[in-house]
Amino acid sequence: MENLLKEDERLDYLLAESLRIIQSPSVFSFSLDAVLLAKFAYVPIRSGKIVDLCAGNGAIPLFLSARTDADIVAVELQERLADMAVRSVGYNGLNDRIHIVNDDVIGIAAKIGYEKYDTVTCNPPYFPAIEASEKNIKEHVAIARHEIRLNLEQAVQSASELLKQGGKAAFVHRPGRLLDIVTAMRANRLEPKRIRFVYPKEGKEANTLLIEGIKDGKPDLKILPPLYVYDTNGEYTEEVRLLLYGQDE
Amino acid sequence: MENLLKEDERLDYLLAESLRIIQSPSVFSFSLDAVLLAKFAYVPIRSGKIVDLCAGNGAIPLFLSARTDADIVAVELQERLADMAVRSVGYNGLNDRIHIVNDDVIGIAAKIGYEKYDTVTCNPPYFPAIEASEKNIKEHVAIARHEIRLNLEQAVQSASELLKQGGKAAFVHRPGRLLDIVTAMRANRLEPKRIRFVYPKEGKEANTLLIEGIKDGKPDLKILPPLYVYDTNGEYTEEVRLLLYGQDE
Repeated sequence: MENLLKEDERLDYLLAESLRIIQSPSVFSFSLDAVLLAKFAYVPIRSGKIVDLCAGNGAIPLFLSARTDADIVAVELQERLADMAVRSVGYNGLNDRIHIVNDDVIGIAAKIGYEKYDTVTCNPPYFPAIEASEKNIKEHVAIARHEIRLNLEQAVQSASELLKQGGKAAFVHRPGRLLDIVTAMRANRLEPKRIRFVYPKEGKEANTLLIEGIKDGKPDLKILPPLYVYDTNGEYTEEVRLLLYGQDE
Repeated sequence: MENLLKEDERLDYLLAESLRIIQSPSVFSFSLDAVLLAKFAYVPIRSGKIVDLCAGNGAIPLFLSARTDADIVAVELQERLADMAVRSVGYNGLNDRIHIVNDDVIGIAAKIGYEKYDTVTCNPPYFPAIEASEKNIKEHVAIARHEIRLNLEQAVQSASELLKQGGKAAFVHRPGRLLDIVTAMRANRLEPKRIRFVYPKEGKEANTLLIEGIKDGKPDLKILPPLYVYDTNGEYTEEVRLLLYGQDE
């Protein structure tokens, strides 16, 4: 363990998948949104090629590795986060299936291949850059959460460049950006096909948006049943418990 | 009653509002979507001016008259439907508050006034014109349900032309047209602010979309809690029962 963890890092459990992930309260921890996106995205099961953009500490690639035997490339701009992901992948013995690329999402297809991938997932920075400059937040978190180094349009463009015709791109974002994301997707040949809104609990407005598009797909958008995170007692709903903890709890 | 009803028309109840409405199984009957839209739309309560486009037999204006003292103009292209609406309004003693205009929605602002209205509601034809030509359906129903004489973009444009700055336009449509409607709204200065998806029951995909935009509003879209029509027993949910039958049942 001495060489595995740095500074205030912890080795947390991805319970549902029997995997472990390196996290740090001061640098980066994955959110529920990453779990939701990893379960929402359609992935090829037996073979194929997947890219996760804005991979952070590798939570989505790790979750996906439990659902698919496809090769997974994880692209993360920040060296510190990419390094956490590399060590987590190694710890879980997944070096042959998950490849961490420490590089910019902008222009990434020129480096790892245009139109070669079946699925792209992306949990991009949600918040405008201007909000980050006003707050005195740590740089790693600021870059991961705010559109400082990557905005939504750039993320969507890279996803489209990576995908084969008929390939699928899945994003998670805030509902307030719905119009921006569908506009960017259509402008980049990604036809929105499935949307699922996530509500903190019954009677509240949605606070998260899951959306999947198909490259050069035909218009035929479906709005899936809502997903509720907490029940009326403030406990995780059955659906979210299964995502987080698996079948046995 | 002799002069009130024609052919196979009936005088149905709008139970929640203690109003009556003339309907005909062969010509036109209002749908649940009209009820949902009439309750979804924000309306000025004490005074102001409202337009309902594609008014059919006047169900939305009648429902709205129970929520507001504003003047309501109802625009309906089809003479037969507009005539039903005129007779229903008269029967309910609402001639001073609801004015039926038998005219084309296209270009209507040139006739009843540009940028004069606080709220526009519209339950437009949902289906492409091509589907209507393939089916041997009655002309009144075909024009009301299919984009033969009015398409979505034209309906949105007329709504925008009628509205004051800051006025609100509310539409009901199919979720598959979400991207078309938000694109048309933004192209016509109507910024989408509230969306509510209607699900036939829990676990099913949404089959109806309620959307409201503000003329020249700032981007800030909210996704409201879902509305379910039927419960797991196949009965109307409490929310829909209240809309249809009012407080007492």
